[in-house]
Amino acid sequence: MAENLLIVHGGGPTAVMNGSLYGAIKEAKKSDKIGHIYGANNGTGGFLKKDFLELENVPEEKLKLLLQTPGTAIGTSRDPIEQEHYEKMADILEEENIKYVLFNGGNGTMDTCGKLHKTCQKRGLDVKVMGIPKTTDNDIAVTDHSPGFGSAARYMAACTQELAADVRSLPIHVVVMEASGRNAGWITASSALAGEKGYEPDLIYLPERAFDEDKFIEDVKKLLEKKSGILVVASEGLTDKEGKPIVKPVFKTERATYFGDVSSHLANLVIQKLGYKARGEKPGLLGRASIFMQSQVDIEEAQMAGELACRAALDGESGKMVAFSRVSENPYEMKPFLVDIDEVMMYERKMPDEFINEEGNGVTQAFLDWCRPLIGEELPDMISFNTQSGK
Amino acid sequence: MAENLLIVHGGGPTAVMNGSLYGAIKEAKKSDKIGHIYGANNGTGGFLKKDFLELENVPEEKLKLLLQTPGTAIGTSRDPIEQEHYEKMADILEEENIKYVLFNGGNGTMDTCGKLHKTCQKRGLDVKVMGIPKTTDNDIAVTDHSPGFGSAARYMAACTQELAADVRSLPIHVVVMEASGRNAGWITASSALAGEKGYEPDLIYLPERAFDEDKFIEDVKKLLEKKSGILVVASEGLTDKEGKPIVKPVFKTERATYFGDVSSHLANLVIQKLGYKARGEKPGLLGRASIFMQSQVDIEEAQMAGELACRAALDGESGKMVAFSRVSENPYEMKPFLVDIDEVMMYERKMPDEFINEEGNGVTQAFLDWCRPLIGEELPDMISFNTQSGK
Repeated sequence: MAENLLIVHGGGPTAVMNGSLYGAIKEAKKSDKIGHIYGANNGTGGFLKKDFLELENVPEEKLKLLLQTPGTAIGTSRDPIEQEHYEKMADILEEENIKYVLFNGGNGTMDTCGKLHKTCQKRGLDVKVMGIPKTTDNDIAVTDHSPGFGSAARYMAACTQELAADVRSLPIHVVVMEASGRNAGWITASSALAGEKGYEPDLIYLPERAFDEDKFIEDVKKLLEKKSGILVVASEGLTDKEGKPIVKPVFKTERATYFGDVSSHLANLVIQKLGYKARGEKPGLLGRASIFMQSQVDIEEAQMAGELACRAALDGESGKMVAFSRVSENPYEMKPFLVDIDEVMMYERKMPDEFINEEGNGVTQAFLDWCRPLIGEELPDMISFNTQSGK
Repeated sequence: MAENLLIVHGGGPTAVMNGSLYGAIKEAKKSDKIGHIYGANNGTGGFLKKDFLELENVPEEKLKLLLQTPGTAIGTSRDPIEQEHYEKMADILEEENIKYVLFNGGNGTMDTCGKLHKTCQKRGLDVKVMGIPKTTDNDIAVTDHSPGFGSAARYMAACTQELAADVRSLPIHVVVMEASGRNAGWITASSALAGEKGYEPDLIYLPERAFDEDKFIEDVKKLLEKKSGILVVASEGLTDKEGKPIVKPVFKTERATYFGDVSSHLANLVIQKLGYKARGEKPGLLGRASIFMQSQVDIEEAQMAGELACRAALDGESGKMVAFSRVSENPYEMKPFLVDIDEVMMYERKMPDEFINEEGNGVTQAFLDWCRPLIGEELPDMISFNTQSGK
């Protein structure tokens, strides 16, 4: 009897999450062991309800559209999973003759992946459970980087370049762009890659450093003495030296406290304390959904991660995640390997000190060298004749 | 003695403003009448200080980068201009033997353009002053549309498609994207073009209709009974039935009152009144600076508008603006013509009633037919297998 394979997505999507799905399906289709290739409809929720999408007969011309579709084509979820749910999942795997499970997701999803693997082991079930890394924030441990980050970084670098070209052609004012990544500054930092074409942001504020409002105002003031259009890129998750969010709570519900946006907060500070025009922009989810700014390297690696996870499961591996190790920076060379899920579960990876400048308002050359290959092809050349008007 | 030409940019940039600059310079270079091709450094301010950039010797390989550079390569300004300034401008034109002036801008700039033309006439100066239309908001009168709008519309349509693909793959929640255009809803409305590929927004709120918060909550509530990820697109300039901004003032300075963002305001309403997860996104200036989502039709028309304005001036026309008339919708055919500046000066064009649906939360087929040709090539095909989870 043919064995079935199940793919489950968890957490927020990326611009290339469907690329990994494509890779996994393609690889599974090559094997004559596999009967059904199931997708859990809307993540673990669909898994627990046996709500499965049959993907094995989707024709190739449709399937390859996954490479240019953001979001996740089988849905996803963020439901908390308890031990009883793992038992239920294991029951379902037995009932449906599912021998291979691939989880695609970030830290939380890898935790789920590892726990299901252990539950199956404990029950003596012959099921192989593998993890495919996915994150825009680049906060998964052990791996050099994860699929999804390169495209989010390219989006941020390209937007910074475009916005800087706009901002610099206007009279004196300040624009603050908010970047995703609440606890890890990888995406915020990648705005600096616009410097390759001369359009770097003037200031970059990462969540890895305590934010000091007086120092920020001082930084902006100094710049305004020399030039006109100032571009600041700031993480959505900035906190002060006590670790409290720099934005005030707007209101509370039973479940959560809601805060204002860092971008408009910092723009308002500039207006109030310096009297200059300022505005905040917040592309938010657009940054993880952009196919127009997808990184070619990222979509290829995403596909490969899906293929490798699938092949490893078919070859008998379980409880592991596909990870990337950097062989060389220039020319860029990456080698995939398998890592025990235990080593990555729920561990959040932040920017190391050597990637952040001393003043805490920018990045280092080491970061630029590390990040550059991940955003893919060169950003466009641009030209400008006007001189900055200064104060 | 050779005669000189001056190009002046006014108001906020677009993704194709430099395209018109390119067209104008190319056309001016063809004429052997022209000596210097000047760009006013940073708009009318540079004009009044005789701060001119010499553009006639920029090599073609550099010049053509203008087609892929957002912002304005000669800078721009928003300074208020008084009658004494027009006299001063006329003095400078005489002193510098400038016989041709091209103004590229929106309503305010066309006002400046018309007034300089009249000042020159009154003083008996043989100077030809021509206008090139430019606006992302599409609020210039008489012309079918203006360069800059097509790219802003393409950006909004493409972002809506990408964001909808992301939003629909997640558990129940609401995303509100804010669109530019404070008084005219053209950009907001163009989000509906994502429907071409099945990714239209669920609700669209235009500044041409009074916004009713209770009706909005009702609209969202009804949708949440049927589907999970809801995407709302709302204009930054929404007002209530008394004409007051729906967002409250955050703080005041001597010069202006500052308001919060419509996107986060509406997202917060959903959380507070319906108890669902919601978030707001505000790409803001990114929407007028995107080269990646530039419309091919728009960049070609922008270039043509620059060429035509230059040629008309050289042919002796003055006090006129290049405008577009729609010959046919499908296949798209547009015919440029010249219109007296008096007819467009300071007149703001809004969405006509036949482009807005009866409920006031969407657009009509007539709008889609009108807008479609302007955004250029087809949006990408996408695919999804998951079913919306509903309530």
